[in-house]
Amino acid sequence: MTNFKDTWIAYIQNLQNSICAAIEAEDGVALFKEDEWQRPEGGGGKTRVIANGNVFEKGGVNTSVVYGEVTDPMRTQLGISGDNWFACGLSIVLHPSNPFVPTIHCNYRMFELYNKNGDVIDRWFGGGTDLTPYYLFEDDAVHFHKTYKAVCDKFDTALYPEFKNNCDEYFVNSHRGKERRGIGGIFYDYCRPGKDRDIEFWFGLGSGCGNALIDSYLPIVARRKSLPYTADQKFWQEIRRGRYVEFNLVHDRGTLFGLKTNGRTESILMSLPPTARFEYEYKPVVGSEEDKLWQACLHVRDWAK
Amino acid sequence: MTNFKDTWIAYIQNLQNSICAAIEAEDGVALFKEDEWQRPEGGGGKTRVIANGNVFEKGGVNTSVVYGEVTDPMRTQLGISGDNWFACGLSIVLHPSNPFVPTIHCNYRMFELYNKNGDVIDRWFGGGTDLTPYYLFEDDAVHFHKTYKAVCDKFDTALYPEFKNNCDEYFVNSHRGKERRGIGGIFYDYCRPGKDRDIEFWFGLGSGCGNALIDSYLPIVARRKSLPYTADQKFWQEIRRGRYVEFNLVHDRGTLFGLKTNGRTESILMSLPPTARFEYEYKPVVGSEEDKLWQACLHVRDWAK
Repeated sequence: MTNFKDTWIAYIQNLQNSICAAIEAEDGVALFKEDEWQRPEGGGGKTRVIANGNVFEKGGVNTSVVYGEVTDPMRTQLGISGDNWFACGLSIVLHPSNPFVPTIHCNYRMFELYNKNGDVIDRWFGGGTDLTPYYLFEDDAVHFHKTYKAVCDKFDTALYPEFKNNCDEYFVNSHRGKERRGIGGIFYDYCRPGKDRDIEFWFGLGSGCGNALIDSYLPIVARRKSLPYTADQKFWQEIRRGRYVEFNLVHDRGTLFGLKTNGRTESILMSLPPTARFEYEYKPVVGSEEDKLWQACLHVRDWAK
Repeated sequence: MTNFKDTWIAYIQNLQNSICAAIEAEDGVALFKEDEWQRPEGGGGKTRVIANGNVFEKGGVNTSVVYGEVTDPMRTQLGISGDNWFACGLSIVLHPSNPFVPTIHCNYRMFELYNKNGDVIDRWFGGGTDLTPYYLFEDDAVHFHKTYKAVCDKFDTALYPEFKNNCDEYFVNSHRGKERRGIGGIFYDYCRPGKDRDIEFWFGLGSGCGNALIDSYLPIVARRKSLPYTADQKFWQEIRRGRYVEFNLVHDRGTLFGLKTNGRTESILMSLPPTARFEYEYKPVVGSEEDKLWQACLHVRDWAK
């Protein structure tokens, strides 16, 4: 694939457009506002946020195309070698107001390293999509996971089980035992093109998963967004949103790397929910609908079987 | 001072009792609930929480007396030597419901290290109290800082300027430039008894500052707790509470050390506010009361001059 970098950038930016259009259509009221930003050291991005919509209380669909010299902190803290780097990715978080509609997060990215002559000396792909419901609808969980399994299976049936397991292992609030922030999805990182799985393979997989976001998520939104809910159910959503905050600020590698390396704070923290609650020793009533969700966060299940 | 450890433990536990009594009296409705917990590796603590009171929406007044063997993570991550360690401290966070009443945080602690024979080979003190208002009342800020300056000045007039500066440097959301979580107070750490400042000096200072909490804070509570406030003012409080969450989860050394070393999560995270908001690029109107508070968090002032 010639001029691969430009192909990836074009794909990511087109995907940002099509996803924003689909979300606006589903919301019916709110529109995205765009902040285009420049990074002094090289590159920039487009942060698109939606707020106080009919469906979406807060969300962001962001792309960035950034590059620069490999710095000493990158060498020591990330183990990165080479002289120059490039990264381009899409990052999405959507927090609906209705507690029966899950929060979704996804991120698809490509990273390249160059030597002094500008030759590519390393390149890897990463990505994933995960779902954070506040109430457990098993058919939603099955639909979500089966959508990504179907995409992965087209490339290699070994991928989905591995990527699902990565996701289950990654999104853990380890300070709360094995409690996860949601019911998982897929996650992969440091995937380097090789003999068997070449650059077309990883581009195809990343774009296939990225394209699947709309099909994996919007049908769930459509069938839950008009369900009536109580103040108690909103309260529970805000408790779980608190756990989302805990994961993103204490454990998420991307968030912490961004915040500690002078990333654009407002774009990074658009992932935080609009509201959150933190209660001492809050536990749902055993056997309640809230407890069913909590148990699904504590015990991994095979949703796509 | 013979049997110093027991003296410090008795002081900390008495202070917990007297502060809880004063807070309950000021609240007038809510009472503390105590969870006494044991640490499997040695020691334990008393977590006392207050919630949904007339004044205090959420708060904790915690003590712990913990000890154990020096582990490899302590050696590598904390640079601690020796064979056994001991720590005893008091930790307080109070989040009032009324946005005109500030949040307060304090922590006073003593740490000892022993060799194989049980001899004390190192000992240090740490502590501090800081104030996080949501609206700036200059007389409150002056009263708060002058109270701690008066305590410190009794020991050495060099202390308050140093400790205030430590505090201003520590409670910074560095991912937001120089924005602090509040208007500071005092902070000191790794204070080892020496020739000039012996163990009685540091005990006296720690207990003097600990005792000053009631005088520094409750008069402010008393004069602000009945002020009427609007939904917009509560909204602003929750935005600032979001910054409190960001500081505690991203930057606070004690919180992160506790969460990553299997500390008691519910006792550590009692510091988080009951509710919080995270809005994209929220900025108060220039010249508004909200902006005045924000400016006081951005620009350090000498409140006790």
